[in-house]
Amino acid sequence: MIRHFSWGRQYLWVQFAALLLVLLTAGHARADDPLPSWNEGAAKSAIIGYVTKVTRQGTPDFVPEGERVAVFDNDGTLWPENPMPFQMAYAIDVAKQLAATDPKIAANPMVKALIADDWATLMAAPHHQGFLEIVALTHAGTTVDEFRQSVEAWMKTATHPRFKRRYDQLTYQPMQEVLAYFRANGFKTFIVSGGGADFMRVWSERVYGIPPAQVVGSTTRVVYELRDSGPVLVKTMDNLVVDDKAGKPAGIHAYIGQRPIAVFGNSDGDKEMLEYGTIANPLPSLGVIVHHTDAEREYQYDVNPKSSGTLVEALKEAPQRGWTVVSMKDDWKTIFAPE
Amino acid sequence: MIRHFSWGRQYLWVQFAALLLVLLTAGHARADDPLPSWNEGAAKSAIIGYVTKVTRQGTPDFVPEGERVAVFDNDGTLWPENPMPFQMAYAIDVAKQLAATDPKIAANPMVKALIADDWATLMAAPHHQGFLEIVALTHAGTTVDEFRQSVEAWMKTATHPRFKRRYDQLTYQPMQEVLAYFRANGFKTFIVSGGGADFMRVWSERVYGIPPAQVVGSTTRVVYELRDSGPVLVKTMDNLVVDDKAGKPAGIHAYIGQRPIAVFGNSDGDKEMLEYGTIANPLPSLGVIVHHTDAEREYQYDVNPKSSGTLVEALKEAPQRGWTVVSMKDDWKTIFAPE
Repeated sequence: MIRHFSWGRQYLWVQFAALLLVLLTAGHARADDPLPSWNEGAAKSAIIGYVTKVTRQGTPDFVPEGERVAVFDNDGTLWPENPMPFQMAYAIDVAKQLAATDPKIAANPMVKALIADDWATLMAAPHHQGFLEIVALTHAGTTVDEFRQSVEAWMKTATHPRFKRRYDQLTYQPMQEVLAYFRANGFKTFIVSGGGADFMRVWSERVYGIPPAQVVGSTTRVVYELRDSGPVLVKTMDNLVVDDKAGKPAGIHAYIGQRPIAVFGNSDGDKEMLEYGTIANPLPSLGVIVHHTDAEREYQYDVNPKSSGTLVEALKEAPQRGWTVVSMKDDWKTIFAPE
Repeated sequence: MIRHFSWGRQYLWVQFAALLLVLLTAGHARADDPLPSWNEGAAKSAIIGYVTKVTRQGTPDFVPEGERVAVFDNDGTLWPENPMPFQMAYAIDVAKQLAATDPKIAANPMVKALIADDWATLMAAPHHQGFLEIVALTHAGTTVDEFRQSVEAWMKTATHPRFKRRYDQLTYQPMQEVLAYFRANGFKTFIVSGGGADFMRVWSERVYGIPPAQVVGSTTRVVYELRDSGPVLVKTMDNLVVDDKAGKPAGIHAYIGQRPIAVFGNSDGDKEMLEYGTIANPLPSLGVIVHHTDAEREYQYDVNPKSSGTLVEALKEAPQRGWTVVSMKDDWKTIFAPE
């Protein structure tokens, strides 16, 4: 028995030494290269060159810490948006759950179309009314606390149809390194996404190290009520403000109140935010487009653009604006962060 | 010449020694007492007791840093709101300037009333339409950069009619100490005010050490345009969202995305935010009301409430909610921060 215990202790020490070795090596690698998952090339050089430049005190390109604002689109930039944005997957799963117990919801024509996988009907209504009805059913009428619990519960069990991993385990490792690198260099990192702010704030801190107040997203009005149980905020579908396209610079102004100097996006929805950060900015700026070119490891929708990730106009503008275009296939050694 | 120079050096050393003494004494005083401008009493004890409690690791009341969110109303809580909110003084000054060179603006009935000091007419229109017209004239149609420059220029020259000091030199010293004390204890400090976010963000960092992204205020829609000179955001009067009363918890949710644990206000406009932070909050919370009781050094409008600082309902609720009521007359040694 004692012998056995002693073996266990020895084993623990070996584990400890191995862990130490891993940590030291990792620390060493990181000190040499802030972006180890990036292949050497123009994109990696542009990013590192920019950060080095604006943090070198006493030079004309130096930017004081308070002005180091970096904004990141989420869907397609920090994690995938295929086969559909993850928030849509959430809405569909919840709508199906609700329909299973609530005949009134089950009778809704859009929910019926959803259950029948009838995307033609769902997408036929003008102005995305079909999809918005699913969003309204699953996002409005609940309190923000109930909504948070629902998203948390979903995130713990739902898995991506292709990669068979939890959605929050599908963040891009090279972009996680960019986030950490920018923060280590005095940047404040913000998410600026078309996704719902309430949806993203549930996990943004845990998944990206970005606290709720640094998440800018689409919003609707919430209504304050003082109930017997205490104060609540009830979600509605009123005053929908979509944080996409020209809404992104407006959202940045409303929530951050400062012009960003570094902008990362991946689609035409990010074009205006890229312009806002990089054109005629008195401070040195960086614009980066993550280009989905890797059908094998992730998706390739540069050739055959999909509605959620169309990249045509911004790609055309890129050379004249000096934006860096990242090819996921060529510039990234790995795609996803380790589980 | 050498003699003279040597005198100068000696003088510099004396200055240096004096400065050192001041710094050391100040440091000492601060180490002993984080709120030196507060008289000893229930209010000061409540504030210090609360901060001490939630920062004591290993106790049940300990709150992790990420959850230490403190929100502060601005007008009447961090600086005065009499004879009118300072932003209104700005709007009036600018409207008068515009009227001097623009006959169309001079012909506006509300501007006419303003110039004639005819407050009856200005206030007669329902829903503050008179005042909103002045705001629209002076706040909309400009780019956010032009607006910022205008507010900066005004702040450099305009003075308060009674105190004859620049408006940004009228912050309450005891509250400046509270802001610094909370931040030194790992709190993130936010302004949550009925004032315009664009107006406050011009000076919030310089005056309170609160960066633009931590300012929550009233907003209207801004419109993005890419002009030949570069991207601009144009202010409009659309989608006015007033950050007051029930709008404050909603604004906190939209912009901060976390429930505050410490709330400072001074009027009924802060009641819902005080409730939101302190009722049924799973974390230990603090609610504080700054009560304007000092006619001699500032204003006393507790007896004769004015529209911008009415404090009736929140004061009634205070004892049952456990909110701390600060009497400016009795609890504060000094009112204003030194020039």
